[in-house]
Amino acid sequence: MSTAADRFATEGFGPENLPYASFSPPGGDPRLGVRLGNRAIDVNTLAAALGTTGPVLPAGAHPAVSAPTLDVLLAAGHETWTALRSWLVEVVTTDGLDEAVEASSHPVGEIALHMPFTVADYVDYYASEHHASNVGKMFRPDQAPLLPNWKHLPVGYHGRAGTVIPSGQDFPRPKGLRPEADGTPSFGPSRRLDIEAELGFVLGGSAPAGEVSLDRAAAEHLFGVVLFNDWSARDIQAFEYVPLGPYLGKSFASSISLWVVPWAALAAARVAPPAREHPLAPYLDDDGEDPWGLDITLGVTVDGQTVSHPPVSTMYWTAPQMVAHMSVNGASLRPGDFFGSGTVSGPEPGQRGSFLELSWGGKEPFTLPDGTEMTFLADGQTVTLTGTAPGPGGSVIDLGECTATVLPAT
Amino acid sequence: MSTAADRFATEGFGPENLPYASFSPPGGDPRLGVRLGNRAIDVNTLAAALGTTGPVLPAGAHPAVSAPTLDVLLAAGHETWTALRSWLVEVVTTDGLDEAVEASSHPVGEIALHMPFTVADYVDYYASEHHASNVGKMFRPDQAPLLPNWKHLPVGYHGRAGTVIPSGQDFPRPKGLRPEADGTPSFGPSRRLDIEAELGFVLGGSAPAGEVSLDRAAAEHLFGVVLFNDWSARDIQAFEYVPLGPYLGKSFASSISLWVVPWAALAAARVAPPAREHPLAPYLDDDGEDPWGLDITLGVTVDGQTVSHPPVSTMYWTAPQMVAHMSVNGASLRPGDFFGSGTVSGPEPGQRGSFLELSWGGKEPFTLPDGTEMTFLADGQTVTLTGTAPGPGGSVIDLGECTATVLPAT
Repeated sequence: MSTAADRFATEGFGPENLPYASFSPPGGDPRLGVRLGNRAIDVNTLAAALGTTGPVLPAGAHPAVSAPTLDVLLAAGHETWTALRSWLVEVVTTDGLDEAVEASSHPVGEIALHMPFTVADYVDYYASEHHASNVGKMFRPDQAPLLPNWKHLPVGYHGRAGTVIPSGQDFPRPKGLRPEADGTPSFGPSRRLDIEAELGFVLGGSAPAGEVSLDRAAAEHLFGVVLFNDWSARDIQAFEYVPLGPYLGKSFASSISLWVVPWAALAAARVAPPAREHPLAPYLDDDGEDPWGLDITLGVTVDGQTVSHPPVSTMYWTAPQMVAHMSVNGASLRPGDFFGSGTVSGPEPGQRGSFLELSWGGKEPFTLPDGTEMTFLADGQTVTLTGTAPGPGGSVIDLGECTATVLPAT
Repeated sequence: MSTAADRFATEGFGPENLPYASFSPPGGDPRLGVRLGNRAIDVNTLAAALGTTGPVLPAGAHPAVSAPTLDVLLAAGHETWTALRSWLVEVVTTDGLDEAVEASSHPVGEIALHMPFTVADYVDYYASEHHASNVGKMFRPDQAPLLPNWKHLPVGYHGRAGTVIPSGQDFPRPKGLRPEADGTPSFGPSRRLDIEAELGFVLGGSAPAGEVSLDRAAAEHLFGVVLFNDWSARDIQAFEYVPLGPYLGKSFASSISLWVVPWAALAAARVAPPAREHPLAPYLDDDGEDPWGLDITLGVTVDGQTVSHPPVSTMYWTAPQMVAHMSVNGASLRPGDFFGSGTVSGPEPGQRGSFLELSWGGKEPFTLPDGTEMTFLADGQTVTLTGTAPGPGGSVIDLGECTATVLPAT
């Protein structure tokens, strides 16, 4: 007798992780999946196969596991998330259930992945001090690198939910008005197409009156994380962004990875955030609270060649702080609300999460391992984000990958 | 024999208008409604009552008229919109159908109105030259009133779709970090709560690859208009907005009117937009195109007392230009996408669409007709927007009302 975990777990995708997706097996319809090693478990089929003889699926989880995406699970709320995850862990770690898991699963190489959830509102933050400082040094060299508000609140803005796209979906180079050397605009394809290597956070549950505390954010609303690439046309952004912020420079495409790693899988990755420079407003004050920094290391590759390793642990603002901020003004939260951390950059050049920073505004080309010099993206280049976190007992939590190729402008 | 229009039409709500809503009659479920005078017609019931004896509902419109909101109609596309509107006009202007219309309708005073559609993405523009100039003069007195990009493209940004709320829903004064006199922030209720009197535009149809031309925007995507109040906490906005734009200062609530006036009802309101100062990029160039300025006059009241009459005809950017801009970078459009014009302000003080402008940054209190002095909003005050446009043959198109009361902070 053996367990499913014994037979199928791989490093990064063991029973400590169990990320969720929406997938179709060959010839099949979309359904809720959970990943163990290189197998995608069809959760609804598994629950039906075990019936009342094995661990019994929690009653409240039935609608969620029979849905084609995570939408119903996100709306069901945190008690259902906890109960379903406990059931899944029990099933994959119980002797003798390996054959049922095998029969209810498919090799990940044979399935098609879909957008895991319907994005309700999408917000992008700017939570990395090193990133914000680098941008400030480049664009406002005569001023302090950080603006006066930056260490008092997590700066953020709303983006376009309808153009959050699944990993693997390629997109054409965006067109728009770009400033020429004399400052006047001309219309054409972006000449400064960039990435932003981010962590993305998926929210569930409802908060109709807003005002979600740090504790409630962590316990009741943060469902999971994905890798997130907020593609950015720096030239279009530079011309348009005053005074109301980024718009078309960002809204053409933002890619997410398709296996959503449960928030609960990141317990062993929790670390203290950086020391706070100012006392924070009560709704943001995490002094004495559980630490919610995350020791996740991202990887950025261009055409398979490694460019940098941005460390999420260096982010100034934590995910619960970003949720508390989003809702403190009374703004409601809905299932499927989604936010990005902002570009993750560490203090070292090899830890920068954008080409803007890696090439210092395009002025200092950087070199790929094969000797290619680059600044911004060329047509045909493929960018892939990866990420890992420490799991319990020396295990690893793998965040999968987020990838897309830049197609020529239409 | 008489027509339904003869018996029920009132000024502003004649057969030239026929706005749509989602409504419930007493004790009934939400359903699609059309307004004629002071009656809300239950379109599905009317179509069933006429059956195959009267004008026959276009086949493609059945799913749309049997849905509880406008969502299905918006997704059905412009050919269905045109066919349904033609059928409605024929029904209400045909002799002898007045009794069927009466039997299928309810007095508007007895119904409950709901959010007419599910907001997909929400964008707010900044398309009034007088508004943008007034803001520039107040906040950047040592510079040109308009920033260099303003007359080259319609400046806009994404807002929070989940907090677009129906007219009549009150909301508490938002809280957040506001700058004190020395520039440091303190947390508390907004002290500078403002309105933005806008026109809102409802989009339908799909454009998966973006790049919607001016002609296609007008003919295939602009479904209708509503009155829109983008409530704004100016102090929260002032502290947070650099460099990524407004966020919590806007995201707590944005109110829309609940009768969606069809784009087709505004044909007689079309006027030439202001002369263009710079040649425009081809995708925005409306020289020689059909004019899409709109001769709509808004009304702003505080506790029933008139404050101003902002003229939409003075807007620099037209709705088709704002759609073309939204999508030129390849961003997809979805049914239910929604955008605001930005605050509508004309050249005269009595034409300003925000208290920020009416009180010149809070420095010059203005006086209501009853003698009350005010700058920004006090708890308990009610703001109502109204609007009218010229219809064909001397008729009037009434946009209904958009209202809410500010409750004390929680």
